[in-house]
Amino acid sequence: MGADERLEAYARLIVRVGLNVQQGQDVAINGLVEHAPLMRAVARAAYAAGARYVDAFYGDYHVKGAQVELGPEGSLDWTPPYLLARLEDLAERRGARVSITGDPDPDLLAHLDQRRVGAARMTRLEDLSLRQVVENRISWVVAAYPNAGWAKAIFGEPDVERLWQHVAEAVRLDAPDPVDAWERHIALLRERAEALTERGFDAIRFRGPGTDLAIGLLSGAAWDSAEAVTTWGQRHVPNLPTEEVYTTPDRRRTEGTVRSTRPLGLKGTLVRDLELRFRSGRVVDVKASAGADAVRAQLAVDEGAAMLGELALVDGSSAVGKIGITFLNTLFDENATSHIAYGAGFPLLAPGAEEHVNSSAVHTDFMIGGPEVDVVGVETSGAEVPIIRDDAWVLS
Amino acid sequence: MGADERLEAYARLIVRVGLNVQQGQDVAINGLVEHAPLMRAVARAAYAAGARYVDAFYGDYHVKGAQVELGPEGSLDWTPPYLLARLEDLAERRGARVSITGDPDPDLLAHLDQRRVGAARMTRLEDLSLRQVVENRISWVVAAYPNAGWAKAIFGEPDVERLWQHVAEAVRLDAPDPVDAWERHIALLRERAEALTERGFDAIRFRGPGTDLAIGLLSGAAWDSAEAVTTWGQRHVPNLPTEEVYTTPDRRRTEGTVRSTRPLGLKGTLVRDLELRFRSGRVVDVKASAGADAVRAQLAVDEGAAMLGELALVDGSSAVGKIGITFLNTLFDENATSHIAYGAGFPLLAPGAEEHVNSSAVHTDFMIGGPEVDVVGVETSGAEVPIIRDDAWVLS
Repeated sequence: MGADERLEAYARLIVRVGLNVQQGQDVAINGLVEHAPLMRAVARAAYAAGARYVDAFYGDYHVKGAQVELGPEGSLDWTPPYLLARLEDLAERRGARVSITGDPDPDLLAHLDQRRVGAARMTRLEDLSLRQVVENRISWVVAAYPNAGWAKAIFGEPDVERLWQHVAEAVRLDAPDPVDAWERHIALLRERAEALTERGFDAIRFRGPGTDLAIGLLSGAAWDSAEAVTTWGQRHVPNLPTEEVYTTPDRRRTEGTVRSTRPLGLKGTLVRDLELRFRSGRVVDVKASAGADAVRAQLAVDEGAAMLGELALVDGSSAVGKIGITFLNTLFDENATSHIAYGAGFPLLAPGAEEHVNSSAVHTDFMIGGPEVDVVGVETSGAEVPIIRDDAWVLS
Repeated sequence: MGADERLEAYARLIVRVGLNVQQGQDVAINGLVEHAPLMRAVARAAYAAGARYVDAFYGDYHVKGAQVELGPEGSLDWTPPYLLARLEDLAERRGARVSITGDPDPDLLAHLDQRRVGAARMTRLEDLSLRQVVENRISWVVAAYPNAGWAKAIFGEPDVERLWQHVAEAVRLDAPDPVDAWERHIALLRERAEALTERGFDAIRFRGPGTDLAIGLLSGAAWDSAEAVTTWGQRHVPNLPTEEVYTTPDRRRTEGTVRSTRPLGLKGTLVRDLELRFRSGRVVDVKASAGADAVRAQLAVDEGAAMLGELALVDGSSAVGKIGITFLNTLFDENATSHIAYGAGFPLLAPGAEEHVNSSAVHTDFMIGGPEVDVVGVETSGAEVPIIRDDAWVLS
C-alpha cells in the first residue's frame, strides 16, 4: 500500500467507523497546521461519504506560543465567541467532529513561563466541547497523524515512516478490509463488556510482580467499550485505536499495591517503574525510579486526584500492545494493556451510585497489565472468576 | 539580512504600517496553510505591538477542492454562520485584519468543473468583508507570502528565494528602516493625491505608442493614495506594496485608444498586447495577441463591465515597477505603473456625483503606463498640464 493509499484508507476509517458520517451531515475537523495532509484526506473522505459541508479548522501552537510569550495576561484564557458558536451550531445540526492529535513539537512551549502556558487555555471552549461529548450531542472521534516531531519524541529521530507503520498496525489498516476488521473488533469488545456487566462482580483483582490490587466496583455499574451513541441514535467510535473495556469503580474501595508495567508520559516527564499503594481507595505511597514527584504533584491537585476514576481491561490480543512501543500519546498507550486512572470517573456508567464515583480535575491513565499480570473478577461471595490469564481473555 | 530576520521585518511592517496596531486591539490574520510562516511571524509582531488577542485563521484550498469535486450542489456557496460572527465581533471590537495572498497552487482547481469552482464561494462572507472595508469599520491590510507555487507560476520554477527578494524590494524591506521609509513614501503619495484633487482636472490624457486616451473626471472627485482611516480615526495602509494615486472617473467620458504595457493575468489566462478602443465611455473594440476572448467575456458580464471604474497614476520611481517582472498578482502588478480598471468604481471618491460612477461585478486593472507614455491633466479650458513625463512625476 503506497503512502497516499494508506492516508486515504486511514481517512476512510476515521469517517466511516470513527464518525459513521450520515448522508447530509455536517463534519468539523480540528487539527494543527502540521496535520494538513490528514485534514485534507478526511475532508475528501467525508464528502465522499455524503457530508453536506466539511469545516476544517486549523490550530497553531506557534501562534499560541507567541501569545504565551508576548500577550497580555488578561486575555490568556479568552475564548473568541465565534468558536463557541461554531461548536454549538455543529451540535444543533447534529454534526460530527474529528479531532486530530499527534504533537508536532512537544518542546515548543518548554522554554516559556509554565504558569502562563498553563493559563493559556480556552477553558470555555474545552468545557463546551466536553459537555457535548458527555451529553452525546455530537458524533466524534479522536485519531492521530504521524508526523516528524512526534516520531522524534518516540524514537529520538524523526522516523515518520516507522511511526506510520506502527499507527497503521494499531488502527488495523493492515487488514484486507479495515472497516470490516473494525466491525468484528467492535463486536468482540461489546461482547466482553456485556459479559462483565452481566456478571456484576463486586471487585476486580490484579496479581503479578509487585502487584496485588483489589478495586471495588459499584452495584449496577456498567462496562462500556468502543462504541458510543448520540442522542439521535448515531453509533460512532470515539477513539481510533480502542482496545479497552472499561468501567468506573467505587472510589472508596481500592486496596493494595500496584506496579506500572509501562512508562508513563506526564507532560514531558517520563515516569518509570511507578508503584502506588492504596488504602481505603486512596493512594498512600508513591514510588518510581523516575518522575515520582510529577505523580505526587498531580495527586495533590484536589480531593479526588488520589482516588481511582477508571478501570480498563485489555488483553494481549491488543493491536496496540503487540507493537510494544510507548507512543507518548494516551490515545495509543492506554490501549496497549490493562490500565487504571487516578482522578475523574464516569458518573453515567454508575446510575444510582454517582455519589461514589470519583470527581477530580485530573484523569491520568497508567498501564498495569501484561503477560505476568492475571486479572480476576471477585464475586460477592468472595469466589474468583478468571478474566485475563497469561495475557489472554478467558471470561465468557 | 537572514531569512528569519527578513520574515520578522516583513511581519513588523505589516503590523506597524499596514494595520498600525493599537495597544489592546484585537487582530485577525487570514491566510492559507501554506502561509503559516508569515501568519506566525505576524502573530508575534502583533502581540509585540500590544495586541490583546490574535486570531489566526487558516483556509485550505485542498479542502475547498474536495467540496467542489464531491460536495452537494446545495451547500457550495454556504457560509458557516460562525465565520460571519467572527468578522462582526472583530469590527465591533474595532479590530484589525490581515489578509495574506500568494496562491500556492494556481492550477489546483483547474481540472474541476469550472461552473462548480465559480459557485463555491462564500458570498455572504465576501459581502460582509467588503462592506466592513467600504464603511471603514476595520483596520485592514493585504500582503503576500512568497511561496513555491507562486514562484513557479512566475518563473517556471519554484525559485522562492528569487521571489522573496523581489517582494522584499517591492515592500521596501531593503531600506535601512522600512517603517521610516514607508512613512516618507506615504507622505509623498499623499502630496501627489492632494495636488491632483486641488487641480480639479476635467480629464486625464495618456499619450504613447498605440495609446491616445482621454478619461473624463467628475467635478469634485477626490484622488486618494496609500492610507485609509477607520471610523474611529485609526490610519492604516490597506495594500503592501502600494505606489498609486487613484480616482474614480466619469464612466461616460472615456474616448480614444489604449495599449496595455504589461501582460495581464486573468484567472489563469495571460492576456498580451491588449488594445481597447473607447467611445462615449464604453469599450467598442478589443484586440490582443493572446487572451482577447477572456477580456471580451469579462466585458460582457454586465452593463458596467465595459466602462472604466478606476484611473491610477504610478511613475517610474515605483519600487514594484523597477523590478520589471509580472507578479501574476494584482496587489503587485497594479503598482508597477499607471493603470486603469474596467468595471466597478468607487462612489465614495465622488460625493454628489455617484450616479456617474461606474457599477459592475467586474473590476479588472490593467497596466497602461511606462517610459514612453506621457500623462497630462486637461483643464476645463483645454489647457494641458504635465503630470508624468519620461516616466517621472512632474506635477507639483
